Amino acid sequence: MSKAFELDEDRENRLGFEEVIYGAAKDISALSDLLVELQEAKKNALVTKVQREKGEVLLSLFPSAFFHPPSGIFMLQAKTAASTDQPKIAVITAGTSDMGVAYEAFYTLQYMDVPVDIIQDIGVAGIHRLLNKLEQLQTYKILIVIAGFEGALPTVVGGLLPQPIIAVPTSTGYGTAKAGETALHAMLTSCANGITVVNIDNGYGAAMSALRILKII
Amino acid sequence: MSKAFELDEDRENRLGFEEVIYGAAKDISALSDLLVELQEAKKNALVTKVQREKGEVLLSLFPSAFFHPPSGIFMLQAKTAASTDQPKIAVITAGTSDMGVAYEAFYTLQYMDVPVDIIQDIGVAGIHRLLNKLEQLQTYKILIVIAGFEGALPTVVGGLLPQPIIAVPTSTGYGTAKAGETALHAMLTSCANGITVVNIDNGYGAAMSALRILKII
Amino acid sequence: MSKAFELDEDRENRLGFEEVIYGAAKDISALSDLLVELQEAKKNALVTKVQREKGEVLLSLFPSAFFHPPSGIFMLQAKTAASTDQPKIAVITAGTSDMGVAYEAFYTLQYMDVPVDIIQDIGVAGIHRLLNKLEQLQTYKILIVIAGFEGALPTVVGGLLPQPIIAVPTSTGYGTAKAGETALHAMLTSCANGITVVNIDNGYGAAMSALRILKII
Amino acid sequence: MSKAFELDEDRENRLGFEEVIYGAAKDISALSDLLVELQEAKKNALVTKVQREKGEVLLSLFPSAFFHPPSGIFMLQAKTAASTDQPKIAVITAGTSDMGVAYEAFYTLQYMDVPVDIIQDIGVAGIHRLLNKLEQLQTYKILIVIAGFEGALPTVVGGLLPQPIIAVPTSTGYGTAKAGETALHAMLTSCANGITVVNIDNGYGAAMSALRILKII
Amino acid sequence: MSKAFELDEDRENRLGFEEVIYGAAKDISALSDLLVELQEAKKNALVTKVQREKGEVLLSLFPSAFFHPPSGIFMLQAKTAASTDQPKIAVITAGTSDMGVAYEAFYTLQYMDVPVDIIQDIGVAGIHRLLNKLEQLQTYKILIVIAGFEGALPTVVGGLLPQPIIAVPTSTGYGTAKAGETALHAMLTSCANGITVVNIDNGYGAAMSALRILKII
Amino acid sequence: MSKAFELDEDRENRLGFEEVIYGAAKDISALSDLLVELQEAKKNALVTKVQREKGEVLLSLFPSAFFHPPSGIFMLQAKTAASTDQPKIAVITAGTSDMGVAYEAFYTLQYMDVPVDIIQDIGVAGIHRLLNKLEQLQTYKILIVIAGFEGALPTVVGGLLPQPIIAVPTSTGYGTAKAGETALHAMLTSCANGITVVNIDNGYGAAMSALRILKII
Amino acid sequence: MSKAFELDEDRENRLGFEEVIYGAAKDISALSDLLVELQEAKKNALVTKVQREKGEVLLSLFPSAFFHPPSGIFMLQAKTAASTDQPKIAVITAGTSDMGVAYEAFYTLQYMDVPVDIIQDIGVAGIHRLLNKLEQLQTYKILIVIAGFEGALPTVVGGLLPQPIIAVPTSTGYGTAKAGETALHAMLTSCANGITVVNIDNGYGAAMSALRILKII
Amino acid sequence: MSKAFELDEDRENRLGFEEVIYGAAKDISALSDLLVELQEAKKNALVTKVQREKGEVLLSLFPSAFFHPPSGIFMLQAKTAASTDQPKIAVITAGTSDMGVAYEAFYTLQYMDVPVDIIQDIGVAGIHRLLNKLEQLQTYKILIVIAGFEGALPTVVGGLLPQPIIAVPTSTGYGTAKAGETALHAMLTSCANGITVVNIDNGYGAAMSALRILKII
Repeated sequence: MSKAFELDEDRENRLGFEEVIYGAAKDISALSDLLVELQEAKKNALVTKVQREKGEVLLSLFPSAFFHPPSGIFMLQAKTAASTDQPKIAVITAGTSDMGVAYEAFYTLQYMDVPVDIIQDIGVAGIHRLLNKLEQLQTYKILIVIAGFEGALPTVVGGLLPQPIIAVPTSTGYGTAKAGETALHAMLTSCANGITVVNIDNGYGAAMSALRILKII
Repeated sequence: MSKAFELDEDRENRLGFEEVIYGAAKDISALSDLLVELQEAKKNALVTKVQREKGEVLLSLFPSAFFHPPSGIFMLQAKTAASTDQPKIAVITAGTSDMGVAYEAFYTLQYMDVPVDIIQDIGVAGIHRLLNKLEQLQTYKILIVIAGFEGALPTVVGGLLPQPIIAVPTSTGYGTAKAGETALHAMLTSCANGITVVNIDNGYGAAMSALRILKII
Repeated sequence: MSKAFELDEDRENRLGFEEVIYGAAKDISALSDLLVELQEAKKNALVTKVQREKGEVLLSLFPSAFFHPPSGIFMLQAKTAASTDQPKIAVITAGTSDMGVAYEAFYTLQYMDVPVDIIQDIGVAGIHRLLNKLEQLQTYKILIVIAGFEGALPTVVGGLLPQPIIAVPTSTGYGTAKAGETALHAMLTSCANGITVVNIDNGYGAAMSALRILKII
Repeated sequence: MSKAFELDEDRENRLGFEEVIYGAAKDISALSDLLVELQEAKKNALVTKVQREKGEVLLSLFPSAFFHPPSGIFMLQAKTAASTDQPKIAVITAGTSDMGVAYEAFYTLQYMDVPVDIIQDIGVAGIHRLLNKLEQLQTYKILIVIAGFEGALPTVVGGLLPQPIIAVPTSTGYGTAKAGETALHAMLTSCANGITVVNIDNGYGAAMSALRILKII
Repeated sequence: MSKAFELDEDRENRLGFEEVIYGAAKDISALSDLLVELQEAKKNALVTKVQREKGEVLLSLFPSAFFHPPSGIFMLQAKTAASTDQPKIAVITAGTSDMGVAYEAFYTLQYMDVPVDIIQDIGVAGIHRLLNKLEQLQTYKILIVIAGFEGALPTVVGGLLPQPIIAVPTSTGYGTAKAGETALHAMLTSCANGITVVNIDNGYGAAMSALRILKII
Repeated sequence: MSKAFELDEDRENRLGFEEVIYGAAKDISALSDLLVELQEAKKNALVTKVQREKGEVLLSLFPSAFFHPPSGIFMLQAKTAASTDQPKIAVITAGTSDMGVAYEAFYTLQYMDVPVDIIQDIGVAGIHRLLNKLEQLQTYKILIVIAGFEGALPTVVGGLLPQPIIAVPTSTGYGTAKAGETALHAMLTSCANGITVVNIDNGYGAAMSALRILKII
Repeated sequence: MSKAFELDEDRENRLGFEEVIYGAAKDISALSDLLVELQEAKKNALVTKVQREKGEVLLSLFPSAFFHPPSGIFMLQAKTAASTDQPKIAVITAGTSDMGVAYEAFYTLQYMDVPVDIIQDIGVAGIHRLLNKLEQLQTYKILIVIAGFEGALPTVVGGLLPQPIIAVPTSTGYGTAKAGETALHAMLTSCANGITVVNIDNGYGAAMSALRILKII
Repeated sequence: MSKAFELDEDRENRLGFEEVIYGAAKDISALSDLLVELQEAKKNALVTKVQREKGEVLLSLFPSAFFHPPSGIFMLQAKTAASTDQPKIAVITAGTSDMGVAYEAFYTLQYMDVPVDIIQDIGVAGIHRLLNKLEQLQTYKILIVIAGFEGALPTVVGGLLPQPIIAVPTSTGYGTAKAGETALHAMLTSCANGITVVNIDNGYGAAMSALRILKII
């Protein structure tokens, strides 16, 4: 138990990306110890799901770090733009309430050096907003589609567009939204073909699965 | 316990329609006793959710009756067309698998003397099929919208059309469809405004709530 | 991403009512940006499910606004009475604990210029209170019936009265009330005919579905 | 393992009634072995939840036995009337579909030598049927109230009558009835006071708890 | 809407006890208005499930009132002993963590003028503690048995003692205790005979059902 | 309602593949009507989730068709090998019980003209079997990983290999396997990065999402 | 895909026991192919969860095999007694309905050459039956405790006896028994200390975990 | 009710260990009363699941006590090392977020005088970390394996190592992790043999079941 954490250092060789830190269940001192280790090793770090209060304390400890409260994304050194500039991935949201999850995907991709666009507020209750964007959407390689409530957006997008679609249910909504479970199950039972799904609010996971696809192109 | 059943005979005065019989949990002899009583009283009867085997036995006992196995609808005397002919209600389905429930609504309305059209197979995975029917759909007073799987159809319809929308989830699908629960919850959490919902597979209930609305027009 | 939100501006043409803002999952700065935009466009706005703390901050930013904490209703400009005065809609509650949801329906209807009465505390554990109000209840076009706990009120009302009934389950209760799920399921499985249901605590949705019905009368 | 079963023979001394046999999960040979043992010991036996096919085979093996398929009640020797004749217990059902469970309670009480009346089809969707029976219902010591679907009957009865009320949810219904779970939860969250509840379809348990109460009168 | 609440004033005539107020979902001003009305009418009042903060504010407003934070019981005038002194009811708890619910039953019975004893900490993990109390337990008319975690206590008590048993599951425990749902379901599926159950943490309901039984003795 | 079904004929233009027929909820006559239509239009057809009895009847009606009972795959004309021969996709199973779902993916891909290999029985309870296949697995573009029970296989594969991973939970198992729900939730909460998931037993959906990825390579 | 199955042949070296075959989800031809392979390799085989119809066909194909329908245990060559005779393990059941699961544990242990006793029908509703067996139970090294319904037996045993206790919930019961989920959750939340639990109806798993313990003695 | 608690003082004789106090649902004054009693009786005490705020107050009242906030362990007198020094038990964790539960097991074992090692951060997403530790892991008698998220670690360990394995699911994760339910169900349905499971986050229970095993060696 000499070191605070045993990072999976070989991960980059095997998988092509470094280990990312899940921040939600670690307390400030655990996160801080780990970040110091990485800082001393001259590495950057991506921490996800950092709650606002914890992130603000960490920011005071690591003043050059980057923290975006709505998405819970924390980076030791800000890396919020990719080094290439031709976005291949679109992050699409049904409504404003889904923007925190959208930014989790957005910053994760930027951190991984993948340019990405966010296209927001095209939920299916006003379907012309989506239809107006069809031509633009056809230009992306991969579509990450984020929705809460009834989670219908990936189904409609999946019926209109041929690209890989990674659907992300969000916990937006109340009552029968069941903290995202309804959107999750709706996306998994979509009558559109070939949609895949990640965990509720898992913008990070959607970004990583997009990255896996980009690596084989 | 002298009579087999105590029908709610005053119901028509209070509510404007007679009691309808729920057939699923009654055995053949219970249903048969009840139908004999009604036949002797020179009444028609509507029985819902009659399983195929039971319906076929009943049909052999009451040869002039009507039985439609996919919807489980049984009538002592067939009444499958309304006496007026201007349909005010559209029953819309996402897919062929939802037709049993659609016919439950259809025959219930006909029994209640309300003309109705079925418009089928306009699920959101091929949204142009729905958009092509928009003009026709605008001509109805009330829309009964039926869908299984992820249950997205009422949301899209509700964003496009202003009429009262009664959404009916069906138990079509498998796995995360959860025997209709996912479609139910998706319809209840719809981001479209003012959609109301009835129980899973409850085409009968949708018809009766449409009838309540028609009575106040 | 130049504008804070992309409102569905065509909604009024299509559906006959403007977009309403879901306030629960937006933070104060997001709501404030949006309200400024609408204020500058000389529009009113209805925001639902605004938590007390957020509503009070918004009220300090928009001093001429209206905020009703128990219902979470926020309006840029108060519109709490309709311009016509013959109520066509009754909002009925089982108990005092359901009044927040009742007022969500009430203010939404007033905002939409529909007069409405609230009739409270006529839950079925003291059924004479409901029976005493039957004559009054017969005078309304539409009944919005709100109940928590076991959610029995819409069933009893539906057996006594012929109008359209929109049932709203509330999250009132504990243990097996399951935050409104039991009332929801009880209303959906009601043995009364033709009752429709909206999401738990969704007074807003009940009002909007009443509005859809009123538009076809 | 010499004997087929180790009956709790002291139970009558401790509790005032003999052990009753749960039939659903025992196969025919297990039940038959046990009944032979009891027959040889000159005892009667009550077996509950016996499926129709199993009961019919057992009846052929024990021709003097009694079997009532809708309730699943099997007795070695029929005991279907009490030796005293003043019923103190009423078994009340919401609808015909609940009669199997009602008879399970009825025959259990008769077996235990307690006279009992069944009062059927007074569900709350036609509440005058219940109100018409109020005077009769006041004459019983204990009310066993049985309902499926939304399970509202015990709540209304509990608001009108002061006796002990044992509520029995049934698995009647479909979709959100959830095989009786909704009625169960509705009864447990009843806004009426002092209602107690037994397991879904547990007419037997309701009878036994009534018996416990009768013993202290 | 002139009066704050419409109490069910006829309840005592019908049922033999006055309406009791559910405090959990009413805010301080609603409760205070109601208590003032009752105080002016020279009545006492029992309020249940009052959260600690609300109860303390109410106590400062009604200094002669009684408030017991662990049980959430609030009375306008303390009535914590019955006018007769021969306890007929035992409230039995499995562990110390269940004492809040035990006191809810205890104070409700005292308020209703029924003397009652609490017998605590006789959970089944140390069964001799229960066996040592058997003789004492036989002296009560009715047993209210309260347990959280796996909820086994009513089953063991029910196998040893013949009186009416009202089982109360509590939300004590974590993980698979599921906030009392496991204890609830365990009590409902008890292999002991004739146990009845009330809602999770519903000490009040257990007391009221005991009262219904006492009235017929 | 003149035609039996309204196929989404434009789908191939939009998405690059034709509509596929969901067979589970359609009866034989509905499926037969549809297949006749397609046969007359000189088209092939892929039907999924066809139950054994239905498939065998269809096979007798369409003798040149192909039916594979374990996977429920039915094709009007057998197309069980791709026209190119370099497999780019591996379908990996944890155990023999998952082979039905594996073949649903396999035949769907062959029908879509994509060669594919099945690699079976490399579940994590004997992890050397997986480690022995690592070199082979590195040669595929996309991995479809199928597992029931605890569903751990995609997590281990995802930690070892960098390709896109489409995880398919199966309904294999009993008790807490919950008909595939546990494997589904385990895959969605995988601590491995960038795994995406489809519905329980949805080998077809996994194949279609692989097809979407292949189209952008 | 040359061989029907890839058995984990190294398992005995690693873990000390051979692979056992899960029979429930394999069809007869799959099982038969596998058994032929093992027979040709002069090996015995243990297959679990074999349904009665499948087991009987297999028995006709392998006439020297052993099949016990209530437990679903199938062995290529009967091995139903251990070669040593001092039982160290007791399999304890609450009721007769749990005997199938008890025999699954019993035969698995015998197959693994571990002698074992079954002690049946000592459920907690008649606790003296358990107390009478305490002295006998103290003589075993490990207790496998099997119960359905409310699953209270392991808790009581765990409070009385110090040995390792492996609790097995069974799917016996109805309604709130939830096919064993209630017993499972009750055992996991037991207020007794140090009880461990296996899957519902998993007599096999309980036997294997007992075997792991015996190996370290 | 003279004493604050009735401890099960005979427990050590029966089971070989003293009663341990569950701290989560007792308030500070209840815990403090109990600790004073034990202190006066010259006893040590172990309290589990003590929340941070409560533990800090108790520490100020009992300055010589020991409190470890991440695990919630409180001891009257610190006993954090065993009197023998050859660890027989390994506590293995998948990730840093599981360390609180690991320390609950660790300190419980130390309190019971059992030496123990913690081996952390060997989750299956980087399986070489586990494989590198195999030789070390073979030296322990019993393995307590702790994991959240998808809970795959015990399955992989169980396929590699022959010792008794006590699996502990943790509530680490979000969305479909369902507060530990997914890890729990995954462990219970593990395709590895002979794994037993305790409640979510129940490090204490795992330690106690290890203790039961050690007592029979």
